[in-house]
Amino acid sequence: MATIWCTLELPEDALAELRAGTKGYDLIREPADMVSIAFGQPDPERLSSLPELRWAQITSAGYTRYDTPEFRQTMSGRSVSLCNSSSVFDEPCAQHLLAMMLALARQLPRAFIDQMGVKSWPADAIRNDSRLLSDQRVLLIGYGAIARRVVELLMPFNLDVVAVRRRVRGDESVPTHSIEKLDDLLVTADHVANILPANASTDGLLDAGRFAAMKPGAVFYNIGRGTTVNQEALIEALENGHLAAAYLDVTDPEPLPSTHPLWTVPNCWITPHTAGGHGGEWTRLVRHFLGNLRRFEASEPLVDRVM
Amino acid sequence: MATIWCTLELPEDALAELRAGTKGYDLIREPADMVSIAFGQPDPERLSSLPELRWAQITSAGYTRYDTPEFRQTMSGRSVSLCNSSSVFDEPCAQHLLAMMLALARQLPRAFIDQMGVKSWPADAIRNDSRLLSDQRVLLIGYGAIARRVVELLMPFNLDVVAVRRRVRGDESVPTHSIEKLDDLLVTADHVANILPANASTDGLLDAGRFAAMKPGAVFYNIGRGTTVNQEALIEALENGHLAAAYLDVTDPEPLPSTHPLWTVPNCWITPHTAGGHGGEWTRLVRHFLGNLRRFEASEPLVDRVM
Repeated sequence: MATIWCTLELPEDALAELRAGTKGYDLIREPADMVSIAFGQPDPERLSSLPELRWAQITSAGYTRYDTPEFRQTMSGRSVSLCNSSSVFDEPCAQHLLAMMLALARQLPRAFIDQMGVKSWPADAIRNDSRLLSDQRVLLIGYGAIARRVVELLMPFNLDVVAVRRRVRGDESVPTHSIEKLDDLLVTADHVANILPANASTDGLLDAGRFAAMKPGAVFYNIGRGTTVNQEALIEALENGHLAAAYLDVTDPEPLPSTHPLWTVPNCWITPHTAGGHGGEWTRLVRHFLGNLRRFEASEPLVDRVM
Repeated sequence: MATIWCTLELPEDALAELRAGTKGYDLIREPADMVSIAFGQPDPERLSSLPELRWAQITSAGYTRYDTPEFRQTMSGRSVSLCNSSSVFDEPCAQHLLAMMLALARQLPRAFIDQMGVKSWPADAIRNDSRLLSDQRVLLIGYGAIARRVVELLMPFNLDVVAVRRRVRGDESVPTHSIEKLDDLLVTADHVANILPANASTDGLLDAGRFAAMKPGAVFYNIGRGTTVNQEALIEALENGHLAAAYLDVTDPEPLPSTHPLWTVPNCWITPHTAGGHGGEWTRLVRHFLGNLRRFEASEPLVDRVM
């Protein structure tokens, strides 16, 4: 009987679905030498030390702490597969980014502030500042499963969408350039959306120079990771009015301390890292794992394999 | 020289574009007997009394005050055309409705309230209540230019969209039923969006019985007109939790008095009749008029003709 190490505290309905789909397996909560499959957020060091491990299924889209040369080498040397859960999170993240873009274009935050406060019905002012999400350029920084879905959701809008990514593959659904072209493209975009994960190459990528290079009046969105942004530089670009607005789902650190200036700088809107969240998230993660478990049993290619 | 009566106080750039496009016409601000074309928001009684009038271009999508049997008969008897500007407003209205749907699914108002207040980073609670705009039914009440565009914008989402309208034509882009079927369909929909104009047949259409007939947990949206809703009944349906939320761009009256209970009833979000608004709105209205003026000169069919 193969052993699955599940690190998760699952809600009852998701746990029942996991149990039903893993009959014939030994499902354990603490790692042990006989573990051949790991599911959840297992410690990378502990993973590296499990002699029987064949496959680890991570329950997030980001996998920064696993993404080191050493860990990759260990897993590859021992023929262990690592999968993330990006196909669980691409839909909510893409919808969240579009929600942010439309909310800002349609001035929803301003209407909410009026509703929470004086209730003054500022129709003329808000109408005048409302925008159409049309006839503009959107630059996606990072092109993976989330960006691909964003492009699909933006398809009916009359927008010019381009992307940059580290390795251009040629199968992208919009014109996609090497990230070396970022500086040239920043000046052309009305909307700049960062979807990059945290790692050494993305750390502080959006710095003072890059915010200054953006088109005056551009809007910056971040659903990637907070560490990709020099936050002091972003605050400066909002304070001096160079950027029209920023919409952040991720910050550095998280939670963002209640005294942090990002909360109160003009035209900066923050959601607390909720872009991937959705009711039924755990059930969808369990189903994603069980789908891969069936593929694993049949020696078929695993979905969302990243190592 | 033909005379155009323009009722509008236009911003400078839009006025310049109007002047450039109406060379050879006499452009006047007050009605006079020689007026053959009216542009703006002309008083319907005054229109009826202009002996030379051939065409009136109204600068709104709604045209309730013109939509009476008497006015229609007068215009028709004198072969006067009346056009609205629905093709100027269908795009912003459709984008506004999608903004509302996504903002609620992604719990943006709740995040804004936290940002405006305690800044507590309520990630777990908001993630858990966030939803995917997927695998649900959307019922559109009213099917015209706005609804057609809404359907296009919703196309990439995995949603089941249906509509009701007064006269089903058969060329609708989603399954569309006669408005007599409204009660049967209300119980099936997760999202109910009203897009109907104000008139005798829509007055109070969404009453206590119809809110009660909606699916528990449904969300109601109104970008049509406030008079279509019995607001006391809506407040009751929100207070007792039968509806998950309401998102209103229109109310009765407008502006909504700051003491009105709709502002503070749980899960009710209000924008101050801004769905159709957008920067450059006047320029787009002028261009719409000038496009029709060229068609009028060439005796071609006018766009957005409603009478």
